[in-house]
Amino acid sequence: MSDAEILDAPGRDMTRDAMTRLLSPRSIALVGASNQLPRIGGQLFANLKRAFDGPLYPVHPSDAEIMGVPAFASLTEIGAPVDLAVVAVPGHAVPAVIEEAAALNVGGAVVVTSGFAEMGGEGAALQERIATIARRAGVRLIGPNCIGFMNVHGGVMANFSIDPSAPLPRAGGVALVSQSGGFGSYIAAMAIKAGLGLGWFVSTGNEADMSVAMTLRHLVEQPEVKVLLAAVETLRHPELFIETAERALALDKPIILLKAGRSGDAARAALSHTGAIAGSAEVLDAVCAQYGVHVAASMQDMLDMGLMFETGKRTAGRRLAIVTSSGGAGVLLADEAARAGLSVPELPQEEQDALLAEMPQPFYGNLSNPVDTTAQVMSKPEAMGNLLFRLERSPSIDMMTTVAWEQAATHLEVIVALDQRSPKPLSLLCTGIVPFVSEAGTPLYLDPGRAVRTLGALARQSLDRPAPCRGEPIDMTRAARARAMLPDVAERTVLMEHEGKRLFAEYGIGVTQERLAATPAQAAAAAREIGGSLALKAMSVNLPHKSDAGGVRLGVTADRAEEEAAAMLADVARLAPQAQVEGILVQEMVPARIELTAGIKRDEVFGPVVVLGLGGLLVEILADAVMLRPPFDRAAARKALESLSDGRIIHARRGLDAQEVDAVVGLLMSLGQMARELPEIAEVDANPVRIAHGRAVVADALVILASAEDARSSAMDITPSERRA
Amino acid sequence: MSDAEILDAPGRDMTRDAMTRLLSPRSIALVGASNQLPRIGGQLFANLKRAFDGPLYPVHPSDAEIMGVPAFASLTEIGAPVDLAVVAVPGHAVPAVIEEAAALNVGGAVVVTSGFAEMGGEGAALQERIATIARRAGVRLIGPNCIGFMNVHGGVMANFSIDPSAPLPRAGGVALVSQSGGFGSYIAAMAIKAGLGLGWFVSTGNEADMSVAMTLRHLVEQPEVKVLLAAVETLRHPELFIETAERALALDKPIILLKAGRSGDAARAALSHTGAIAGSAEVLDAVCAQYGVHVAASMQDMLDMGLMFETGKRTAGRRLAIVTSSGGAGVLLADEAARAGLSVPELPQEEQDALLAEMPQPFYGNLSNPVDTTAQVMSKPEAMGNLLFRLERSPSIDMMTTVAWEQAATHLEVIVALDQRSPKPLSLLCTGIVPFVSEAGTPLYLDPGRAVRTLGALARQSLDRPAPCRGEPIDMTRAARARAMLPDVAERTVLMEHEGKRLFAEYGIGVTQERLAATPAQAAAAAREIGGSLALKAMSVNLPHKSDAGGVRLGVTADRAEEEAAAMLADVARLAPQAQVEGILVQEMVPARIELTAGIKRDEVFGPVVVLGLGGLLVEILADAVMLRPPFDRAAARKALESLSDGRIIHARRGLDAQEVDAVVGLLMSLGQMARELPEIAEVDANPVRIAHGRAVVADALVILASAEDARSSAMDITPSERRA
Repeated sequence: MSDAEILDAPGRDMTRDAMTRLLSPRSIALVGASNQLPRIGGQLFANLKRAFDGPLYPVHPSDAEIMGVPAFASLTEIGAPVDLAVVAVPGHAVPAVIEEAAALNVGGAVVVTSGFAEMGGEGAALQERIATIARRAGVRLIGPNCIGFMNVHGGVMANFSIDPSAPLPRAGGVALVSQSGGFGSYIAAMAIKAGLGLGWFVSTGNEADMSVAMTLRHLVEQPEVKVLLAAVETLRHPELFIETAERALALDKPIILLKAGRSGDAARAALSHTGAIAGSAEVLDAVCAQYGVHVAASMQDMLDMGLMFETGKRTAGRRLAIVTSSGGAGVLLADEAARAGLSVPELPQEEQDALLAEMPQPFYGNLSNPVDTTAQVMSKPEAMGNLLFRLERSPSIDMMTTVAWEQAATHLEVIVALDQRSPKPLSLLCTGIVPFVSEAGTPLYLDPGRAVRTLGALARQSLDRPAPCRGEPIDMTRAARARAMLPDVAERTVLMEHEGKRLFAEYGIGVTQERLAATPAQAAAAAREIGGSLALKAMSVNLPHKSDAGGVRLGVTADRAEEEAAAMLADVARLAPQAQVEGILVQEMVPARIELTAGIKRDEVFGPVVVLGLGGLLVEILADAVMLRPPFDRAAARKALESLSDGRIIHARRGLDAQEVDAVVGLLMSLGQMARELPEIAEVDANPVRIAHGRAVVADALVILASAEDARSSAMDITPSERRA
Repeated sequence: MSDAEILDAPGRDMTRDAMTRLLSPRSIALVGASNQLPRIGGQLFANLKRAFDGPLYPVHPSDAEIMGVPAFASLTEIGAPVDLAVVAVPGHAVPAVIEEAAALNVGGAVVVTSGFAEMGGEGAALQERIATIARRAGVRLIGPNCIGFMNVHGGVMANFSIDPSAPLPRAGGVALVSQSGGFGSYIAAMAIKAGLGLGWFVSTGNEADMSVAMTLRHLVEQPEVKVLLAAVETLRHPELFIETAERALALDKPIILLKAGRSGDAARAALSHTGAIAGSAEVLDAVCAQYGVHVAASMQDMLDMGLMFETGKRTAGRRLAIVTSSGGAGVLLADEAARAGLSVPELPQEEQDALLAEMPQPFYGNLSNPVDTTAQVMSKPEAMGNLLFRLERSPSIDMMTTVAWEQAATHLEVIVALDQRSPKPLSLLCTGIVPFVSEAGTPLYLDPGRAVRTLGALARQSLDRPAPCRGEPIDMTRAARARAMLPDVAERTVLMEHEGKRLFAEYGIGVTQERLAATPAQAAAAAREIGGSLALKAMSVNLPHKSDAGGVRLGVTADRAEEEAAAMLADVARLAPQAQVEGILVQEMVPARIELTAGIKRDEVFGPVVVLGLGGLLVEILADAVMLRPPFDRAAARKALESLSDGRIIHARRGLDAQEVDAVVGLLMSLGQMARELPEIAEVDANPVRIAHGRAVVADALVILASAEDARSSAMDITPSERRA
């Protein structure tokens, strides 16, 4: 089933779809309810009971009531509609419960029981059984092996993550979706402590049905959800994830992703933990950048951004005002601003003069920005408040950050009042979490870096949201012409350089002027025709890395071409006796001020991606690359190019000029279309792409086709929109 | 005065030096004491009174006693020896107090008053006055414009940073020195909240006498100090800083530096705040790397490391055990381990079997490492403790990290007991700060990244401490020979390429084989002599960037040399008519697999530094460089080289081989000696350094001499040891 089909699976309730019945139920049953509070069935029931105001049905084989609520011996005994069935019975008993739920037209089930796919073998088979039952019946499933979910807005505490005796979380605008139940609970606890309004928390566990992406897709449409936090190890349903990201962009709801399993040791742990391949974290990061998803550097970073985004504020620019009573803190905050891509502009003299009027006289501080009031400001109680309110109105700044001690209640009240009155984002650096500040929704941080970094994230959300990624139309005629150039994959999967270049030329990519010659004498004739300094290359289907086998001569002039070609063929015959040489490629040498590499590779999760990196002698050492998932438009390609080497590729002295930027963007667009139109291509490596005088020319190219078998499976990676096109 | 002379300034107390009398006083006077607690003079006195058990003398013009302690009208009236005078009187009254202190042979004074050099003009003059008085009398000075200092071990609370009503900080092994008083107070407050044992806190303010470096130099020798935290904007006394770093390495006391004023906006703010030039943050970072000083990425990072280092534990290796009851948290911790340079090795099967015996059966988790007990572990109360204690004894791991909820008191007690029994470092990820854990000294963090990053820092301190930096002996004969090659700086300061190369050759640096020819005909003769493919370059004192003016021809063979040389001279005459060409440099073209750049530049604070960067076409774009401050040895040079491009310069496919590494290290050593022996050199730029076949050859070089005036001032940057040599 494609991702789209998964979502379209029919529910049997005509008024509300199954996913809504599961996550915002009007009636709930708990199968495996217990009167013993410490047990999971007890915790779940206590949690459900304290929050839900609809019909709640504990199911227990023998007890007549659970915590004072009449109990039923089975789901069937209830005799009334059930939207959500929470299942906390031993693994072997789960299939029968799901069968029963299916027969009763339950909307969805949450299975918290462990011992399924995470154990492999029999557990995996058991999981497949319940997934199949649920799928056939159109019953949605969360879990198994999860900690449940919480929808505070709907009064649904279907989890044993939050202690039933802890206060009910505030029904705020933040939704958290975590694959891991235990770590998700940890994040949820820290989120609530940090002051986030965690209105939703869903742990997806083994994801027999509902994945993180599916859950996000549902939540992004909920009006009460303003910010989405996602903690994943394995991203299932990549197309849905991208669709969700596009919806989130359209609705201006930030998604913040924390991806675990990046390193080798961690990926091994994730594999053993989730039993699924995680794909490349670098590709996921690139996809997030392309679709405007914020990637968190740490759990703390995710919560920090969530706190800022929950304010709902956006910024009109990147100009930050810093107000402290300590010059040192102001300097450090200014450093952090630079790191976060914000500016700390010097205030115009007339604005400084206006601020000075609020200060005690004579004033020893600095009002240029960072504003340093010094401890002097204490001597005039209203001075700090007046300064902050006046500065907030400044047309020279877009956002503010300031510092306070947690004991300074009056000062904190002023800051909260300012934040509530101002449309401009404000972050507060404070020595401790202050409940009334958190309750008022003013973002408070304990470290200067964190206080400023979140404003940088807010600026990205406000000012850098990418437009929806639309590629150029698919050209099936061109694809057919290109396909006719490809060899039969049953014979070979590697194209020779000149074949790859012809394919490139078909896609409008600039390549070196070149002729294929059969003999050294023909090579000399071709050299005279092309003229200038030339490269000679031995073409052979057995020689993808020809320079390693003496198969390349550079800087050859026409008068020496025949001799050099003969010498090269002799070298190849000696160094690579197995290689059958098809001809000698005679090629112009193009000038380069900058060398890049470009290509296509395939990710296990996201399918084909276009890669652009720095090239030249240091290509192996630099390992600096950006990626784009097709389809994408010129703006996205330009943005990716601009992010290479932190933008120095363009802004450095002797960096790319405007015409060269256009040329590279064009190259990326062509590769993107090639990846979409020719799914049989497994890998493309154009290296080097030589750039000078406004042109980008591919001087060597390696194209590898998928074997017949790989091609079949990779065709399934193509998105429905691509297939329609 | 040199830094060394500053330290040697005589005190008049023969038994204890002035700095010890200042920082560990046996008697204290407070000039400007007040009975009004909210005033600075009140806060200072209340703080002093509550902690100090020696004689304490409040000085007040009229009050007979201050907070119940008999007061004196002046320092002179006291009539008893005073080690420390704390001064909190208005600025204009400070010089007379310092005069009086000098006359009375006070050890040192802390001046908290503001309105001195930070205001420029009159304030700066006032500061110079008190500095001069103190210097002449051998009275040490902290401040002015500071918040005082605290030595909890000595019972000295000479500050208004800590509230007199707050508990006295724990007399632990952590010392904090901060230039900024306000930000220093903030850091101190956060340190105490995080559980650090802050035994010392000194704010140096305007540094009229005592700088951060001087203070650190004193504190590193104090036996009770185990960890030094430093927050600086401007680093004064760079030699003392390096000497301190070397002492800290010898004593294995980590120094953690937080540098503010890195960005342009921040440096502007720092300049206006401290009135001093900050030097390059990149050079400071490089010096810290060279001398084993930990550079903190943020305030929080500094405190995180301080908490870990305060344990006094060191590690024997980088193998981390991760124990969680949530697979997801384990995966994220493993990611952080990889980022921190730690490994998370899979445990041998027999160790896993031994752990399995402790677990509830059947066990659904994973014991390979990360160890994931799953929530199952709750069902057997002693299981987690047994597992942790058994794992701690594993010969396969060097350090541990684990997770706990702050409510889980029993679990936390087990972890604390384990930490106290084990020599292996342990960090704890917890949902909140738990007082008994902090008091026990177990490092506790609220974010997975922070919990693991500090173990990485501990591994650096344990395993990567550099040896003292000793260069090769200074060779004055070579220096004299080299100096004879240099032009008179009154005439010109830029060397032509062939002159620079001769200087390089004198220092044993590999350069291209080349001849200077006077005419195109001579150039052809030189070309025949050298043979092969050649470069021709126009040499002119007016043409430092010769390729921009058509003054370079590449790939020329002997038979075309005369013609090409003539054409080049014609181009130069047309494009740079002002340039007087001295000759044509005929040069071999050397092969390169990798191109680097190397050179010497001067930092305002640290003097000459050797720079090594990636080169080639992308040199402007890469901006990746490492730096070394001479003197340094081959091990330091090799370590710097290895850190270029995160080590890929060596470890990437086709990276430098062992012979090439030696060649580059040799180049760096030669540049280091050149910088020391020829202080008249302002700048050296060897670009490119072409590397292949085991050789590193400088193919072009720019050498710039300091003008007569600059040379005089730069000679003062040379360290005493260099001058002695």
